[in-house]
Amino acid sequence: MKVLGLLGSPRRYGNSFKGLMMALKAAERFGAETEWLHLYELDVKPCLGCASEDVKACRYPCVIKDDMKIIYDKVLEADGIIFATPVYWYSPSAVMKNVIDRLTALENMIHIDGKSWMDGKVVGFVATGNDSGAMFAVAQMMSILNSMGAVIPPWSMAYINGPGDALELKNFVLDALNVGRSVVMMIKAMRGEKVEKWYDPDLLEWYEREVKPWLIRVVKEEEEKAEKPWKSSTS
Amino acid sequence: MKVLGLLGSPRRYGNSFKGLMMALKAAERFGAETEWLHLYELDVKPCLGCASEDVKACRYPCVIKDDMKIIYDKVLEADGIIFATPVYWYSPSAVMKNVIDRLTALENMIHIDGKSWMDGKVVGFVATGNDSGAMFAVAQMMSILNSMGAVIPPWSMAYINGPGDALELKNFVLDALNVGRSVVMMIKAMRGEKVEKWYDPDLLEWYEREVKPWLIRVVKEEEEKAEKPWKSSTS
Amino acid sequence: MKVLGLLGSPRRYGNSFKGLMMALKAAERFGAETEWLHLYELDVKPCLGCASEDVKACRYPCVIKDDMKIIYDKVLEADGIIFATPVYWYSPSAVMKNVIDRLTALENMIHIDGKSWMDGKVVGFVATGNDSGAMFAVAQMMSILNSMGAVIPPWSMAYINGPGDALELKNFVLDALNVGRSVVMMIKAMRGEKVEKWYDPDLLEWYEREVKPWLIRVVKEEEEKAEKPWKSSTS
Amino acid sequence: MKVLGLLGSPRRYGNSFKGLMMALKAAERFGAETEWLHLYELDVKPCLGCASEDVKACRYPCVIKDDMKIIYDKVLEADGIIFATPVYWYSPSAVMKNVIDRLTALENMIHIDGKSWMDGKVVGFVATGNDSGAMFAVAQMMSILNSMGAVIPPWSMAYINGPGDALELKNFVLDALNVGRSVVMMIKAMRGEKVEKWYDPDLLEWYEREVKPWLIRVVKEEEEKAEKPWKSSTS
Repeated sequence: MKVLGLLGSPRRYGNSFKGLMMALKAAERFGAETEWLHLYELDVKPCLGCASEDVKACRYPCVIKDDMKIIYDKVLEADGIIFATPVYWYSPSAVMKNVIDRLTALENMIHIDGKSWMDGKVVGFVATGNDSGAMFAVAQMMSILNSMGAVIPPWSMAYINGPGDALELKNFVLDALNVGRSVVMMIKAMRGEKVEKWYDPDLLEWYEREVKPWLIRVVKEEEEKAEKPWKSSTS
Repeated sequence: MKVLGLLGSPRRYGNSFKGLMMALKAAERFGAETEWLHLYELDVKPCLGCASEDVKACRYPCVIKDDMKIIYDKVLEADGIIFATPVYWYSPSAVMKNVIDRLTALENMIHIDGKSWMDGKVVGFVATGNDSGAMFAVAQMMSILNSMGAVIPPWSMAYINGPGDALELKNFVLDALNVGRSVVMMIKAMRGEKVEKWYDPDLLEWYEREVKPWLIRVVKEEEEKAEKPWKSSTS
Repeated sequence: MKVLGLLGSPRRYGNSFKGLMMALKAAERFGAETEWLHLYELDVKPCLGCASEDVKACRYPCVIKDDMKIIYDKVLEADGIIFATPVYWYSPSAVMKNVIDRLTALENMIHIDGKSWMDGKVVGFVATGNDSGAMFAVAQMMSILNSMGAVIPPWSMAYINGPGDALELKNFVLDALNVGRSVVMMIKAMRGEKVEKWYDPDLLEWYEREVKPWLIRVVKEEEEKAEKPWKSSTS
Repeated sequence: MKVLGLLGSPRRYGNSFKGLMMALKAAERFGAETEWLHLYELDVKPCLGCASEDVKACRYPCVIKDDMKIIYDKVLEADGIIFATPVYWYSPSAVMKNVIDRLTALENMIHIDGKSWMDGKVVGFVATGNDSGAMFAVAQMMSILNSMGAVIPPWSMAYINGPGDALELKNFVLDALNVGRSVVMMIKAMRGEKVEKWYDPDLLEWYEREVKPWLIRVVKEEEEKAEKPWKSSTS
């Protein structure tokens, strides 16, 4: 069972990153192999909307030759996908939106071989911002991914609408852990395993003991090596 | 296996009604018992937002004593629920929104007994209008229901954004049939049955033969007996 | 110059009420006469969607005879309208949505006499909740009202996405005051007055001195006389 | 008076382009100078979200040195801006969203010199797609732009939710012409001119005579010289 994380934030040390790591760690705990991609580090060109002129022209692996091929192939291997994005103006970041636009080449296979290649994949969402709009952003991603054929499991989302460090926001932490857990549980259910509960309120102790210390360390390392281009130009 | 339809349209003969009937007939075909409620005929008063003052005050069966009790009990019995609404200003009708607001008393049981009573229910959506806004309306319902703990199966929605009789709009018909089918398939998957495909493109023949003639008859009868209050007052 | 407030909350002492009062007081300060209606106290039946069958049947004053007539007439007299609602599931309350649905009878006059009767009215928004979704709710109202022909002035919205007493949330207070101010300034601009600035960051001192003490008193009185139906039934 | 068009479509001959040209021609007719930018031809890198770490770091002209500088300067000169985008998954294209994200550097000047540099600009929207989602996309752009300080005039939007050539869709054409007209009328109103009507239903004859023949010619030329990368790779 494979769960893929897609990070649509420029930072490997911000709240979206932290939420994604929580979800992936929980996914591992409940039995998944995980992997994640930092979308800002990939070269993904914008969608050309080929389908608007020739519906069969939009197909895997897309006429544009760029790093989207890496994403397509990881998505195709994955049983579950977690979309983690900062909330930029009540919506996913443009980098995340761009990858979603390009995923059309998988969904549009319905016109080539009769089936969306996103069909039956299980998805979850992390959206973090310091103002309103997280739910607006999640509703966009959820309605899009479901329209591509994905399953939205119960409690598929974790979000932040205000200031604070994700590591310390207990409700968010518990929700983010459950995003990972719920995605895995739904994959299991769809394979015939009985799921007793969809939300586990008892993951915090494990988080405090095993996830948080690791994540604090990772975040610190990533922040230290990050370029902060605004530092030289403003004060 | 039980699937409940909630109709948020004033009419028992319009496109939302037709779409709901298609979904329910398909749900029956794939093994569900079905039932539906015409929300405009029930007396459901507006939510008082008790939880904003005392989080534990909002609980089943709600302090308001009205026909919402009927809806709560049908929802609690159901494994799947299909929300069918006209698109009034890019959103569900106020009557549908009102019932959704009142469903809080089931979701908020999480603060009473640790679990949302909507948890794990499978939901689908029908939204019809003669202008834009269907997807905006669906995204609202989907994000709300998932936040209450419901599962969104693949291909959970059927919609109309323009003129036309739902009975004749082939894409809509196929989507509406698949809303019912997909809700049932997800209930089955969650019970351990293997689901081979989430969208069945071959339901139209059955529809033409068995559903459409019946539905034409029902719609005709309902339209004949409907009051049309504007007829006497305008011309 | 007249500005009308519409309150879509059950409470005359909650955050939506407070935000609406702030906006109206600021509207008065900048030259408007104001008035407001408590929508929960009016009997407004749901829209019957007449226009879906006969586009000319939907017209002022609506075939339904109820308190919506009061609202229509106040709206028609108003130059500006402020919609204040709690955020119920990322959307306006069903009571607010119901009134918006019924406003169709003014907008639809475009099919009767060539012009929406909402055309050129200036609108503002207050949306308060203790979780995410305020911006989603505002985006719904804004896109609807603009589609009816209303003007959205700069800084048309004030919102709360979390806990707290609106009276003490400085950013919200300043935004809510500016909702009232901006609605009035836009009405003035449309009458040919020059507007120097659209957001006034210096209204807090006046608020502390003149608005807040009055509002604390009003809220206290209203809360004391309010029925709290959940008090008897839960604990 | 200057009105700027921003085209978020890959094509200079599709429906978004056509709608934008209609709006700009109408803006000229009512007194504006116009100009437009084809966003797909500019090199605009994604937002780095600097403000999330240092609120004053996000400021004009942005730490990223790329073609966004051209857009910033055109936006700053403009009194009105028309955003024209295809609907990609119920939202603006990622290219349009990217430019909107980067406009934060103008809005965020509120933290530097006390005023959003988008304050008081008048905006309109064109959104075209062959499925649902246009209103969802417009609601996103409208709520964002208003949050930056822009004015939304009456009838600010024109959209397509289905198949067809924009040049022939009478309702769309009339709405698109009125987007341009309404933006100009609002700029005039804000300068003290009296506006008699916000929507002009009599622009079609002028369109047929002067705009359409020109636009047919432009579209033909643009389509002939366009690269169609999918042509060589699919069939």
